[in-house]
Amino acid sequence: MSDVRMRGFRERADVDAVVKLIDQRVRHLAAEPVPLLEAGGRVLARDAVAAVDVPGFRRAAMDGYAVKAEETFGATPDDPRPFRIAGTGMPGRGPDAAVEAGACVRIMTGAPMPEGADAVVPAEEADLDGETVRVRAAATPGRNVGEVGEDVRAGALVLRAGRRLRPQDLGVLASIGLKLPTCVRKPRVAILVTGNELLPAGERPTGFRIADANSPMLVDLVRRDGGVPLTGPIVKDDRAAVQEALLVSVREADCVLASGGSSVGTEDHLPSLVEKMGELPVHGVAMRPASPAGLGFVAKKPVFLLPGNPVSCLCAYDFFAGRAIRRLAARHPEWPYTKVRMPLARKIASQLGRTDYVRVRIEEGKVVPLAVRGAAILTTTTRAHGFVVVGKDLEGHGEGETVAVHLY
Amino acid sequence: MSDVRMRGFRERADVDAVVKLIDQRVRHLAAEPVPLLEAGGRVLARDAVAAVDVPGFRRAAMDGYAVKAEETFGATPDDPRPFRIAGTGMPGRGPDAAVEAGACVRIMTGAPMPEGADAVVPAEEADLDGETVRVRAAATPGRNVGEVGEDVRAGALVLRAGRRLRPQDLGVLASIGLKLPTCVRKPRVAILVTGNELLPAGERPTGFRIADANSPMLVDLVRRDGGVPLTGPIVKDDRAAVQEALLVSVREADCVLASGGSSVGTEDHLPSLVEKMGELPVHGVAMRPASPAGLGFVAKKPVFLLPGNPVSCLCAYDFFAGRAIRRLAARHPEWPYTKVRMPLARKIASQLGRTDYVRVRIEEGKVVPLAVRGAAILTTTTRAHGFVVVGKDLEGHGEGETVAVHLY
Repeated sequence: MSDVRMRGFRERADVDAVVKLIDQRVRHLAAEPVPLLEAGGRVLARDAVAAVDVPGFRRAAMDGYAVKAEETFGATPDDPRPFRIAGTGMPGRGPDAAVEAGACVRIMTGAPMPEGADAVVPAEEADLDGETVRVRAAATPGRNVGEVGEDVRAGALVLRAGRRLRPQDLGVLASIGLKLPTCVRKPRVAILVTGNELLPAGERPTGFRIADANSPMLVDLVRRDGGVPLTGPIVKDDRAAVQEALLVSVREADCVLASGGSSVGTEDHLPSLVEKMGELPVHGVAMRPASPAGLGFVAKKPVFLLPGNPVSCLCAYDFFAGRAIRRLAARHPEWPYTKVRMPLARKIASQLGRTDYVRVRIEEGKVVPLAVRGAAILTTTTRAHGFVVVGKDLEGHGEGETVAVHLY
Repeated sequence: MSDVRMRGFRERADVDAVVKLIDQRVRHLAAEPVPLLEAGGRVLARDAVAAVDVPGFRRAAMDGYAVKAEETFGATPDDPRPFRIAGTGMPGRGPDAAVEAGACVRIMTGAPMPEGADAVVPAEEADLDGETVRVRAAATPGRNVGEVGEDVRAGALVLRAGRRLRPQDLGVLASIGLKLPTCVRKPRVAILVTGNELLPAGERPTGFRIADANSPMLVDLVRRDGGVPLTGPIVKDDRAAVQEALLVSVREADCVLASGGSSVGTEDHLPSLVEKMGELPVHGVAMRPASPAGLGFVAKKPVFLLPGNPVSCLCAYDFFAGRAIRRLAARHPEWPYTKVRMPLARKIASQLGRTDYVRVRIEEGKVVPLAVRGAAILTTTTRAHGFVVVGKDLEGHGEGETVAVHLY
């Protein structure tokens, strides 16, 4: 075993500077056609323009009788107007009769309007008598008729590029016959976990080994942010093995999340490998936890160095990696957490020049910071309802001060 | 083609009564083991209890030197205490030396503490000089040492049944070695679309046919609410075909969403089929849109009759079907929409006794109701930012009145 040298960090970067670097360097991915039923939550890469009118024909908006409106003028319950039923109109079929003088067509909602008709008298405003119907109220032209293009006009811009598709958007895209909307590709995100002490997630920790808690957490975070997580076996703290894993990750993915081996100890091979294979503009951030976090680029793809301690890993993901993945996916880059503002039950102390990520609970309308010892206590993030960020220009927040809580 | 009879609705149900019926009749599904990496967003069916301590051994919380703390007492930069380096401690391995009087062990974060040591002196508080290290500051016992069980104690209740699993929860479950957390099964939701006029989603509408807009919308809504959508071919308005499709749906799914054929016309076979095969306590609801909506049960499984008009379909899903699916999945039953409160730019008129679902835009901090003609205009829901519900006890809301908007 080699010597445990204690290399130092270069000057620690500001959180804001790292965020700015991500915004400068990380652009959304290319477009691809996506099957409509899979397009929910995806981001449109091109404007969706209608090639057809919706509806493409005049249709009944009610069940009733299609008539020429002016023939109903003056109709009252005491003086109804009689119409001969000339035929029936059903959805999906051409009408089986036109509406000539004195005639009407029984019609169902959604059926095409027969020629000669310009209104639909609702069933409840007429009395059926054999093959004659007596209309008790006058209808204005256009009543209960859906006009061509009333929902979408051919040529109309239906949804703009950049739109994150909602359920009803898929409905509208279907209605204009768009089979494969063009969406931004989903980022493929390699999760590269290193550490001789780690057992694969799902195995029971034993002896001096602990279970990999970061993979399951990162897999779920990546999915939440619109990425496709790619996982592999845990990589030993061996320079050649880490280099090989990093090469494969960069080749197969759009973004790499490397967990562990990111600090400045002997077994921390990642920083120097990233620097050798590409560039490492950030190593060490003025934040707590997650100060050993880093950001590099290999083949122009972002490589995040996430500390192995699970709370630090979550924190570095929240501040940096998640933002990059959302940008790759063309999603809104800001946090997907709901924000609430509430007073602090106890003060939070911090240091000037450092950004703090403080897990908190909400109890009786107040924000309670969790007493934390070290970044290794992952249960602080499961007991927490969310977190408060203390900016670098503050020494903390006082008791009773209103703070913003980002809810997990 | 048979006669277009115009059957009437029975008395229309109140929205609240339907919601109450859903809450009474729809319970969460059974439990199943779920692979950890797939468990994000799932709901725990059983308490997760730790079988092990995390960590299971005393470990270094910093890179540095493991010492017996009392041997550092009195150390200052001017009067440092020398320690002989007896060995090295790396994560995942047993220590290669114990700490005896006058000795220390170089140690990395996460490595097990060597016997005899009770503190870790950070590298930056010591000077290395060959095989000796001079410690410049006193360490208290326990400093930078992670104790056994400091994150999780064996036997502890880690996460309660009913918890919807967050990313960090998966991390904690991994840390205690839980391979297959027991979660509530995902509801299988059959989407049964009927209508002779419909072309499958993705096809371009032509002639008197329109594209099925409801399937893609419902598929995405079901996924959002934690269900697994099951789709099939569009079913013709033929009683035998609809009956067969309903039988298959009820057999394969936990819940059925039937779109179209739900009203009171001749071609609306679903209501009578549901009544024949089970029960139909709700058919017709005092609401706009979606008044033809219904709710029945076949083989105790909920069958929702969703109107074919896409806005009505969305509205009936939002009020009823979504709630049932979230309940089946053991999720929080209330709407997953963010709610904001803002003043109305224009009044909204409604009718006493009827619940209205009004699509609105938010413009310059005000709520603008969208002028709507009929429930067939799906683009009102894509232009809208959300919706306002006008309760049955109100005749509407006045201009300037503050209303709650549920954001899509």
